[in-house]
Amino acid sequence: MGKLVECVPNFSEGRRPEVIAAIVNEVKKVQGVTLLNVNSDASHNRTVVTFVGDPQAAKLAAFTACAKAAELIDMEQHQGAHPRVGATDVIPFIPVSDISMEECVQLANELGQEIGEKLNIPVYLYEAAAKTPARVKLPDVRKGEYEGLKTAITTPERQPDYGPAHMHPAAGATVVGARQFLIAYNINLSTSDVEIAKKIAASIREAKGGYKYCRAMGVMIEERNMAQVTINMVDYTGTPLHRVFETVKSEAARYGVNIIGSEIVGMVPLQALIDTADFYLRLEGFERKQVLEENLG
Amino acid sequence: MGKLVECVPNFSEGRRPEVIAAIVNEVKKVQGVTLLNVNSDASHNRTVVTFVGDPQAAKLAAFTACAKAAELIDMEQHQGAHPRVGATDVIPFIPVSDISMEECVQLANELGQEIGEKLNIPVYLYEAAAKTPARVKLPDVRKGEYEGLKTAITTPERQPDYGPAHMHPAAGATVVGARQFLIAYNINLSTSDVEIAKKIAASIREAKGGYKYCRAMGVMIEERNMAQVTINMVDYTGTPLHRVFETVKSEAARYGVNIIGSEIVGMVPLQALIDTADFYLRLEGFERKQVLEENLG
Repeated sequence: MGKLVECVPNFSEGRRPEVIAAIVNEVKKVQGVTLLNVNSDASHNRTVVTFVGDPQAAKLAAFTACAKAAELIDMEQHQGAHPRVGATDVIPFIPVSDISMEECVQLANELGQEIGEKLNIPVYLYEAAAKTPARVKLPDVRKGEYEGLKTAITTPERQPDYGPAHMHPAAGATVVGARQFLIAYNINLSTSDVEIAKKIAASIREAKGGYKYCRAMGVMIEERNMAQVTINMVDYTGTPLHRVFETVKSEAARYGVNIIGSEIVGMVPLQALIDTADFYLRLEGFERKQVLEENLG
Repeated sequence: MGKLVECVPNFSEGRRPEVIAAIVNEVKKVQGVTLLNVNSDASHNRTVVTFVGDPQAAKLAAFTACAKAAELIDMEQHQGAHPRVGATDVIPFIPVSDISMEECVQLANELGQEIGEKLNIPVYLYEAAAKTPARVKLPDVRKGEYEGLKTAITTPERQPDYGPAHMHPAAGATVVGARQFLIAYNINLSTSDVEIAKKIAASIREAKGGYKYCRAMGVMIEERNMAQVTINMVDYTGTPLHRVFETVKSEAARYGVNIIGSEIVGMVPLQALIDTADFYLRLEGFERKQVLEENLG
């Protein structure tokens, strides 16, 4: 199947369909890239584009879309509910198959340099690509937003990683980085007591001493009169699905509660399902290329 | 990803590399087909070719390879340890993704008719494509082999499903059909007592009252001083991996024995792994298209 990376650029335009179409078209034009989703939000005035492809094709698509956004979006005119620093606000690369996080960090650096030099837009690297701990989290990098960063960018601690040390007059700044695939995962409980779900969520989430790559909350699903542990698995290679499932099962048993089902919301990388089967069947020496469909094309 | 079928034709030539290469080349030439494996055995004087592709491409590749085999193999000269009735001995179609067994039976009928009419080779349909119960099992269809079938073919009960009611002078007859994907699956036990493995194997195999689509034996793996249940899963959609694994675990516990691991030997369709994850995570409403890699162009 070859190396595959996902890229999810966020653009500061969610209202003008012709502008959104022009940006998305830049992605579509690149061979070796498959567009998966386009999600525009008018109140946020923001569009999230999801595509996958081989690393170089993905980088090219991200660059041309960023160039088009710089041409068509004027941050001086932009208003919206969502925090942002530029026309292309943030571009994360996500490893999908046969590619390491290190390669995605490298890709983020290459793209950052290209955007800085060719488009004259200042670029900040974040998450796995961050060069200092202060720039790992997106909210820290975006502090002050477009308006505040115009002056803050000249201070030493806000100096960009690539490009000029001043904002692009229309496109602002862009944040580029690499992170793991996020799996939205819900576990449904045989109880209508949301307090139990909240206690279980606390037991698995990082903030309360649980799993490092697990964000979790207990919520009530009114339509089913059922409590649910709703989870963001922010790195399934570090904290796998089966471990969270088994821990929730064990913690729920403490309250006499069972798991009645679980839901994967949206996409999941094949590797996360292989890892699950590998664990439960106690597979010895299983290799991904044994999956028949992996040998095509 | 689109409809995908596997095809595993067996040819009665395992000694002359140039003949094998010429036959395999017919498969390689067809667009939309991916060659997965070629396995020749000199003592059997037989070659097994494995390829996958979209249904029409797979049918075309099977036909052209069969035509080439009829051109280059003379059954009057053929000797080998393996039972056979023709130059192209047997052609099974196997559903892999987005295709039903009924569609594979239809494909077998189309190919059988084409081989009968265009190559003048008598064709018998077997397994899921069989038109009578007496022709389901390959050994029944192959009874008497090439030499015996030359006269038996004229009797009403051995009349072919397609093509002439006499053997092709060089290529003999061909058996075409449709069957499920076979998964070779071994479960390793925490004991060196092969009798326990044999008892567990008896509990899961169809012949002894076990699972319908399960063939199993207990064997000793000398290098690891370990007993093993070695299994052919002949229809993982009817008898899934997890059910066999859990039953072996339960039966082994009866003897104070644990499962120390399991092995998938060779290829496995993605769906079998999805089904495993689906079972253990108790997934609700999971669809195959949620697998990220399934959405690629």
